[in-house]
Amino acid sequence: MAHIPVPDGMPGIRGLMAFRPETALPLNHLVEVLLQGPSTLTKGERELIGAYVSSLNECRFCASTHGAIATHHLGDRSIVAEVIADPDEADVSAKLKMLLRIASKVQKGGRRVTHEDVDAARAQGATDTEIHDTVLIAAAFCMFNRYVDGLDTTAPDDPVLYDQIGEHRAVNGYLAPNNPLR
Amino acid sequence: MAHIPVPDGMPGIRGLMAFRPETALPLNHLVEVLLQGPSTLTKGERELIGAYVSSLNECRFCASTHGAIATHHLGDRSIVAEVIADPDEADVSAKLKMLLRIASKVQKGGRRVTHEDVDAARAQGATDTEIHDTVLIAAAFCMFNRYVDGLDTTAPDDPVLYDQIGEHRAVNGYLAPNNPLR
Repeated sequence: MAHIPVPDGMPGIRGLMAFRPETALPLNHLVEVLLQGPSTLTKGERELIGAYVSSLNECRFCASTHGAIATHHLGDRSIVAEVIADPDEADVSAKLKMLLRIASKVQKGGRRVTHEDVDAARAQGATDTEIHDTVLIAAAFCMFNRYVDGLDTTAPDDPVLYDQIGEHRAVNGYLAPNNPLR
Repeated sequence: MAHIPVPDGMPGIRGLMAFRPETALPLNHLVEVLLQGPSTLTKGERELIGAYVSSLNECRFCASTHGAIATHHLGDRSIVAEVIADPDEADVSAKLKMLLRIASKVQKGGRRVTHEDVDAARAQGATDTEIHDTVLIAAAFCMFNRYVDGLDTTAPDDPVLYDQIGEHRAVNGYLAPNNPLR
């Protein structure tokens, strides 16, 4: 049971957003811009960064949800697992590997990101906005993961549920209501 | 020099918000609701939570800025320093001490918050919404601190500047433009 009363059948951040719609609005707006808005990073790449940071933070609900969204965007079920196991060995671009390295530094603390990390990403073609967005996506997931786990919300075990959430969010974005089927 | 090009004379998060106004909007909306919106926690108490978490994350710009905003709300310059040194010994309510304890757990990781921590806050009168907001404020500062330091923004040394920002934000909130004087 979560630390505060959330509606039945609303796992993870869903129950928290129902509990406090005033904060849900800017939180959803933020991820809509970062993960679904115009960007030279693909939606799949951005969701991979979120799923990877959530995995580093051991937030099962967020890692499963954003892993499923990334899988839907990428059309490939193995890449998420590869990135979570070791980004350097995953079947992703050299640029994304460098951005994932920056994200892993942000997860530990902002001061961990070095000029060398940023230069290495630039050498693989990363732009200023891609570097900015990588840091902010990683930082935002450090917030969402703490929000979801700090209030001890539930994380379902059923992978089918995450697949359904993944498809729904990938197709409809973060400003759409929850999937009416669930 | 920051990792990405930000306008001259815009330290900390200010330069990042000028660089990427699309994400600045929901970020400012979030802190406006959390730190300035209707709440049974005073604005000073909420800013103290933000300054304390920023101090734990060693984010000098955010700790100085939100410490100055808290000082303006509280009308007392010593409380911020007391809380940063040791919340248990600070001249704040027993309820706020328990909420600051929860915030310190969130800073380390969401899973650190225990039912005992939450029960201890409730025993001092904390409501569900106060517990929710404390967790989300602490989590949000774990994002803001990583954002500001992960992109290596500058933090001015001049305490007068932070006092000016502190008064401006305390009076005008987070949706107002930057102080035109600076």
